[in-house]
Amino acid sequence: MNQKLICKACFAHGKQDIRIDDRELTYTDDDVVIKIEAGGICGSDIHYYQEGHAGLSVIKHPMVIGHEFVGRVDKIPKNSKLKIGQKVAINPSRPCNQCQYCLEGKQNQCTNMRFMGSAQFNPHVHGGFSQYAIVSEQQCFPYDETVPAQVMAFAEPTTVAIHAVNIAGSLVGKKVLVIGAGPIGCLIIAAAKAAGAVEVIASDINERSQKISLAMGADHVVSPLNQEALATFTHNKGYFDVTFEACGAAAAIESTVHVTRANGTIVQVGMGASPVQYPVAQMLAKEISWKGSFRFINEFGIAVKWLEKGIIDPRPLISSEFPYQQIEQALITATDKNISSKVIVTFFD
Amino acid sequence: MNQKLICKACFAHGKQDIRIDDRELTYTDDDVVIKIEAGGICGSDIHYYQEGHAGLSVIKHPMVIGHEFVGRVDKIPKNSKLKIGQKVAINPSRPCNQCQYCLEGKQNQCTNMRFMGSAQFNPHVHGGFSQYAIVSEQQCFPYDETVPAQVMAFAEPTTVAIHAVNIAGSLVGKKVLVIGAGPIGCLIIAAAKAAGAVEVIASDINERSQKISLAMGADHVVSPLNQEALATFTHNKGYFDVTFEACGAAAAIESTVHVTRANGTIVQVGMGASPVQYPVAQMLAKEISWKGSFRFINEFGIAVKWLEKGIIDPRPLISSEFPYQQIEQALITATDKNISSKVIVTFFD
Amino acid sequence: MNQKLICKACFAHGKQDIRIDDRELTYTDDDVVIKIEAGGICGSDIHYYQEGHAGLSVIKHPMVIGHEFVGRVDKIPKNSKLKIGQKVAINPSRPCNQCQYCLEGKQNQCTNMRFMGSAQFNPHVHGGFSQYAIVSEQQCFPYDETVPAQVMAFAEPTTVAIHAVNIAGSLVGKKVLVIGAGPIGCLIIAAAKAAGAVEVIASDINERSQKISLAMGADHVVSPLNQEALATFTHNKGYFDVTFEACGAAAAIESTVHVTRANGTIVQVGMGASPVQYPVAQMLAKEISWKGSFRFINEFGIAVKWLEKGIIDPRPLISSEFPYQQIEQALITATDKNISSKVIVTFFD
Amino acid sequence: MNQKLICKACFAHGKQDIRIDDRELTYTDDDVVIKIEAGGICGSDIHYYQEGHAGLSVIKHPMVIGHEFVGRVDKIPKNSKLKIGQKVAINPSRPCNQCQYCLEGKQNQCTNMRFMGSAQFNPHVHGGFSQYAIVSEQQCFPYDETVPAQVMAFAEPTTVAIHAVNIAGSLVGKKVLVIGAGPIGCLIIAAAKAAGAVEVIASDINERSQKISLAMGADHVVSPLNQEALATFTHNKGYFDVTFEACGAAAAIESTVHVTRANGTIVQVGMGASPVQYPVAQMLAKEISWKGSFRFINEFGIAVKWLEKGIIDPRPLISSEFPYQQIEQALITATDKNISSKVIVTFFD
Repeated sequence: MNQKLICKACFAHGKQDIRIDDRELTYTDDDVVIKIEAGGICGSDIHYYQEGHAGLSVIKHPMVIGHEFVGRVDKIPKNSKLKIGQKVAINPSRPCNQCQYCLEGKQNQCTNMRFMGSAQFNPHVHGGFSQYAIVSEQQCFPYDETVPAQVMAFAEPTTVAIHAVNIAGSLVGKKVLVIGAGPIGCLIIAAAKAAGAVEVIASDINERSQKISLAMGADHVVSPLNQEALATFTHNKGYFDVTFEACGAAAAIESTVHVTRANGTIVQVGMGASPVQYPVAQMLAKEISWKGSFRFINEFGIAVKWLEKGIIDPRPLISSEFPYQQIEQALITATDKNISSKVIVTFFD
Repeated sequence: MNQKLICKACFAHGKQDIRIDDRELTYTDDDVVIKIEAGGICGSDIHYYQEGHAGLSVIKHPMVIGHEFVGRVDKIPKNSKLKIGQKVAINPSRPCNQCQYCLEGKQNQCTNMRFMGSAQFNPHVHGGFSQYAIVSEQQCFPYDETVPAQVMAFAEPTTVAIHAVNIAGSLVGKKVLVIGAGPIGCLIIAAAKAAGAVEVIASDINERSQKISLAMGADHVVSPLNQEALATFTHNKGYFDVTFEACGAAAAIESTVHVTRANGTIVQVGMGASPVQYPVAQMLAKEISWKGSFRFINEFGIAVKWLEKGIIDPRPLISSEFPYQQIEQALITATDKNISSKVIVTFFD
Repeated sequence: MNQKLICKACFAHGKQDIRIDDRELTYTDDDVVIKIEAGGICGSDIHYYQEGHAGLSVIKHPMVIGHEFVGRVDKIPKNSKLKIGQKVAINPSRPCNQCQYCLEGKQNQCTNMRFMGSAQFNPHVHGGFSQYAIVSEQQCFPYDETVPAQVMAFAEPTTVAIHAVNIAGSLVGKKVLVIGAGPIGCLIIAAAKAAGAVEVIASDINERSQKISLAMGADHVVSPLNQEALATFTHNKGYFDVTFEACGAAAAIESTVHVTRANGTIVQVGMGASPVQYPVAQMLAKEISWKGSFRFINEFGIAVKWLEKGIIDPRPLISSEFPYQQIEQALITATDKNISSKVIVTFFD
Repeated sequence: MNQKLICKACFAHGKQDIRIDDRELTYTDDDVVIKIEAGGICGSDIHYYQEGHAGLSVIKHPMVIGHEFVGRVDKIPKNSKLKIGQKVAINPSRPCNQCQYCLEGKQNQCTNMRFMGSAQFNPHVHGGFSQYAIVSEQQCFPYDETVPAQVMAFAEPTTVAIHAVNIAGSLVGKKVLVIGAGPIGCLIIAAAKAAGAVEVIASDINERSQKISLAMGADHVVSPLNQEALATFTHNKGYFDVTFEACGAAAAIESTVHVTRANGTIVQVGMGASPVQYPVAQMLAKEISWKGSFRFINEFGIAVKWLEKGIIDPRPLISSEFPYQQIEQALITATDKNISSKVIVTFFD
């Protein structure tokens, strides 16, 4: 029998129109009810707020934003393995598990994906910036009571980073470049180290990001404006075994081909300029593999474990924290990359 | 002790300056002397003749052209396994087998490569359009007396095609698109069928090439101008498991991303437009792998076997044949893609 | 609404107790009804008949045998793409598509598999040696009217062979040994050739099987009793890139390690002796990969295409044909490996 | 011009006959002379001492033992990048870099390998338990002055462990079992963690080894005698994604098939019982890959970096230390597994 619950949530209504509204949630005996504790603001949340759309996904009706969020278990189905009050990270990905891609184990390519906090389909799928959320048990990943919610709020972007690492193949002993030291780039830096990369160099134009990249585990950091430094990476067919492009700028994408060694791999994570001018001839002659990395598949549990054990410590990325009642201020702050990396939104009361 | 031999050969002297000159060959007791029988004119031979350079490789001194050629064994070292008079295909690739890439088994990325018939280094490495050539025993691949030299002259481009297939990974049961039905594209069509592809579709704008692609094994052929046909390949995230781009035109390269399925592979073989406008966003979202394919590694022996056994029959590609004395006419003919696919040059007298 | 149908079918009741009985079939509007035309007798059918069990799967109640079978469409759901009267091969594999393995794309490891004609679970899943069978639309693979049912009856074992080839990885240019030239071994020989293997050698002790292996595409055949011939394959760390063990005898399994080259792959398809004495030290020192191959995943459609196009021609394997009314005689004949390879059972009237 | 040097070295003369003798070393201007500082005793050193042979390699003339050793640069060629006095780890592997396997990048399968401290070929190749050793520049891996020689003496076995990890493929997020917690097993534990394994469980019968495995990074340790614990790992087709067998006992090898999940990988590192009774049927049905891991290829530099940076800390494995003058006592001590893991031999004076 369906039950109901009224709570507050952060609804995007369109361009620069975000509102705290009442939300009625309906759930069944099979659902899990989560009391949300904290979330992280992602680029797509900012796009929904600032532009009323994220890429091709346009806000057509009020939608709760947020796909990076954690909370505590509030209600559980009978025979659930979860416990009331337990801290859980929530996997916002809900593939259909029936389409051709799902049955190949490529759930991130699901043709009927219901990803939380996304306006890709209409009606949109509400996200997690809400006092409560209704999820299925398999979306719930319990974590240790001693780990702060603000840390575990990084579970989803850390999952994206680990998926990018998996796309690259084994990094054991590899020399790695990460272009773009925003939250995803920095989490890739940390994940690459955790995966055995022997040298990880970060590239970012922004001094603040450069510092954070070092705190997140980069061995060195270079500026893409430092032509001399970059030139040394192009000698002898290129220096890096694997390059992660997590910036999305056209010049960055083009540069990857020159610094990656012959037979090397480039993983494209940054969604930005498109189309871009691409040096096909050099890519061909060096037999480079250029691979796209999109969201994630089954890496969520790994991210939770790594954050729980401190194998990845995301705290250098937290630039500020706002209660959800100040969501608009949080989004405006998150938009300014000179002061913000990851802005955390809390739902503690 | 060094010995000498005088013969005729086809020397490129610069732009539209090709000459039959006397050539003095020096060889040692460890060398194999080959009496050349036939060769095929490749795109780079045409570029050397028509423009005086092929890409960045500029003719700086007279160079014997031709890297696709076969002959008969004329002189052998002591204890050689070869036999005088035996028909042999010649592998023009001469990696150093000492550099980092060679010792990783990636000889096509050798940093000291001495590829025959190439002006990449100075002094250039002479090719095989010559009455005689001096090679090492490991460059010689004996083949059956009953196979015509004109067929085995395809050993090198067939090797290039097989390498492209190897770059793609297993094609068993795969749906394959080959864009560009020139000699390399058509040999990829044949190689993809021989490697177990369940459906191979060719794409070419030229009606003559379309017909040849069918003769070489394509299940269907489409014109890239047929927008309706192409649109059907873009449904449901794309139709083809593997796309070989063997044309090199910017529009062709861009199109690959739309017709290849999510998680699919695109192999770039066509060296042409560069840089090109590339749809990064779609490639990323579909997690496509785009891989360069350059020359070949250890596939030469496979090509010889497949041509010998008729697994690949290249004869539909032979558009005309000239004795080497008419090399200039052969090159001019080969340049006209409306009448020529592969032009064969013979050295029978 | 459920509908019913009465027909004759071949029920295994226990050891050497096979009976033609009436069978009542129930089906819904979503089911496809197939009028069976032909089937092939597999080793497990023989085991159920001769021993009352196949491995650990014991006949606990009367079960229709047969998992290799084809027929014609008799009834279809609304909006079906199938056509009444159309020839179809039937995929007997029915994974749950919900368990962990299914959602990784490894349906052959499904923990709730309902494979037709198998007594693995209780109640058993009936097979296809029946005048009619009820299946789902996705189990149906239409094939060309001109292809004999007796040929397409090989769809399932051919799928098993193609899966074994996929386990091996790309066979392009590879030297391959197939040990055991029974139906599965011979279909692997044909599949390996179709997948680009450059040399396929069969090994079988039985002269009749040796001849069939050549008819199925083997380049040579050797007897495992011919020690001299085998010794040549052990030189220089081993001759074969890939060895398929499709015999299951202990001596055969042990021999694979010696004839396979260092870094080579051995695919275990033959289910027989277990445990066996295995030369671990040699396998380790040569860094061989030994991989199990069990049934198949998504290769059924490939098998149908290859049989339809004649890329694999299984007819040399057909040793005799019986109407289903003589099923016991058919099973007894199939048991005698001196006269039988594949015994076909027909249901034409 | 050849130069000479006289020093002391540890020569194995045959079974239980080890002697400190004078050794005359000859070197050229292209060689590097190393003043040895420390080495580790490996199983093969113990076998040479205790039995006069290690496997098939029999001591036929006095041979300097030891293939795990480090030192300081004493003499260098002109234009060397090395510096006199610099600490270096020495890679004892000397492949020919010319045979078929070397040119495929599989130097560990070199058919003309000259591995230091091995009696495989005759004359044997002397090892590094010597005051001085002559090596080539590419065998030398400089490391930081602050790292103790006793730590870097683990460079070679750590390389073996990293190679085993590479054989397994990416371990990111994987559940891993390591059977046998001797030095190699424990270094695999550490390497698996460094490569991103999310859970590493050790199995060993010896309590002392169990404790060391935890100190080396195992999340848990089980005894193979604890049937109950092991049974939990066999549920649902097996628990571990990857199992490393580093023990070599027949029972251990057999057990791997039951605890490894379907489609999982088993890496065989332990060289011991052979042949062993192997459960082929279960391996086949679960489609397990069983792969041999032998020595290493290009992982030496990674091991040096990981030891230098403390990513792997081998010190829990050091059970005792002897000056080379007490080599016999060192070997006797190393033989007793109840008190010894890795015994270090020093050459500081």
